[in-house]
Amino acid sequence: MIGLGLLGGSITLRVLRSFSSVKAVGYSHRIATRKKARQLAVASEIADDIQQSVRNADAVILATPICTFEDIFRKIGPALKRGCIVTDVGSTKVLPHHWAAKRLPRTVHYVGSHPIAGSEQRGIEFARDDLLDGAMCILTTTARTNRRAVETLREFWSKLGCRVKTMSPARHDRVLANVSHLPHVVAAALINANDSETLKLAGKGFMDTSRIASGPPNIWSDILITNTKNTIKDIDKIVAELGKIKKALKSEDNRQIERLLKKARDKRNTMMEYKMKEKEIQS
Amino acid sequence: MIGLGLLGGSITLRVLRSFSSVKAVGYSHRIATRKKARQLAVASEIADDIQQSVRNADAVILATPICTFEDIFRKIGPALKRGCIVTDVGSTKVLPHHWAAKRLPRTVHYVGSHPIAGSEQRGIEFARDDLLDGAMCILTTTARTNRRAVETLREFWSKLGCRVKTMSPARHDRVLANVSHLPHVVAAALINANDSETLKLAGKGFMDTSRIASGPPNIWSDILITNTKNTIKDIDKIVAELGKIKKALKSEDNRQIERLLKKARDKRNTMMEYKMKEKEIQS
Repeated sequence: MIGLGLLGGSITLRVLRSFSSVKAVGYSHRIATRKKARQLAVASEIADDIQQSVRNADAVILATPICTFEDIFRKIGPALKRGCIVTDVGSTKVLPHHWAAKRLPRTVHYVGSHPIAGSEQRGIEFARDDLLDGAMCILTTTARTNRRAVETLREFWSKLGCRVKTMSPARHDRVLANVSHLPHVVAAALINANDSETLKLAGKGFMDTSRIASGPPNIWSDILITNTKNTIKDIDKIVAELGKIKKALKSEDNRQIERLLKKARDKRNTMMEYKMKEKEIQS
Repeated sequence: MIGLGLLGGSITLRVLRSFSSVKAVGYSHRIATRKKARQLAVASEIADDIQQSVRNADAVILATPICTFEDIFRKIGPALKRGCIVTDVGSTKVLPHHWAAKRLPRTVHYVGSHPIAGSEQRGIEFARDDLLDGAMCILTTTARTNRRAVETLREFWSKLGCRVKTMSPARHDRVLANVSHLPHVVAAALINANDSETLKLAGKGFMDTSRIASGPPNIWSDILITNTKNTIKDIDKIVAELGKIKKALKSEDNRQIERLLKKARDKRNTMMEYKMKEKEIQS
């Protein structure tokens, strides 16, 4: 495990619990994090050197910010053994696939992983072995991806408590722009559109609508910058939807406003019913 | 109490609990609602006639959709006794003040009230006597408003469990556009910008960001249509903020994206700290 933050640490903790015979080696480029990781015993071993940490690995997972992946692929490449599976837990997937093809040796198998878990909390001190329980994990594959590596990872994430889906990196980044990156941008814009005095009068609705804006800015700028085209397209879409409501307000078209709100209410209720049926949420 | 939905019913239930000597008379224009209200005993008496319901009242509260207020003021005006306090629980306040000045006799005192409570649930069957606990209630007053009526209502809402603030109807509608009407519009637009298949892949972040879009469309179109200018101005503001993020994405300006996200994160954290300090939320 390269990168020992909330997600990396939670995964190694869960590996220790779910795979008693697997040795989980962790690495962080920060001395302080390695020290904490040893104190908290989040892995079987914490390595001080990145190449050393992957030397005998059957599988390597990157849980660092996305923009570090290309450099890490380049660094670990020569140290990886033949047939090693390399994956990452980044929130966008097109660029990681591109970097893997460019930087990793042909003798190893790259598959993208995106376990959709986390919280506004950060850091290894919040790592817990049940963070992945019930989370969706999207595996991303292309025509070049090794099928056996995909099946191994599917079993791996399932055993860690995830529901696994597979799709192309391009579709992943489109879908995630819709349901994750756009909402993040919208929550941030909603806060920035208000002044601090007014925010004191906000109620529960506003707090919920803006919650994800409390996420770590550097992680999120990494996500957005590696998915610019899709995110821009989605910003255009919501601006168009806001324009429809604005137009109806301007012409005081009560029925059109109600129609737009009803469409949203019905679509959201259908989504929530699906989520309950799939037991992702409790009623 | 004119109007026996979730809020009207919850207020009369709480009046029965908090003021043992007050007679709470309820009215609804729907026979079925009056029947349910009697079965659930949400008030001391349920009247079949709107004028009859207010005939001896010291205070009258409207808890019907905002767009019915003008007509109700006109209907009840002749039946109100001298010195009666008239208020409402509508989510916008400029137009209710305007309609009260136009339609109510000079012998009664109108003050606007906005207890900020409720849920996505609707109907008297969900009424409960603790709905107002800890809620903010904004009283709206103008230069013409009777001071004693304001003080009486301040005591009234406080005794029902609310924290009371006073402001002008114009400021109320501006602030509420910011923290309530804009988020509602944004949540609806966010849902409408996505197709139903994609929504199946939504996670907890998306569900929270869009939660308020599940509110009743007819109530919300009433709110928006009575606050068009402020809401349009706020739509323009958030579109401008979205534009800033889009511009930074287009020019791949990582630092500017991070700066905008950090600004939002810091403002939201300040808001949440204030809310915890004021005990509106628990940490």
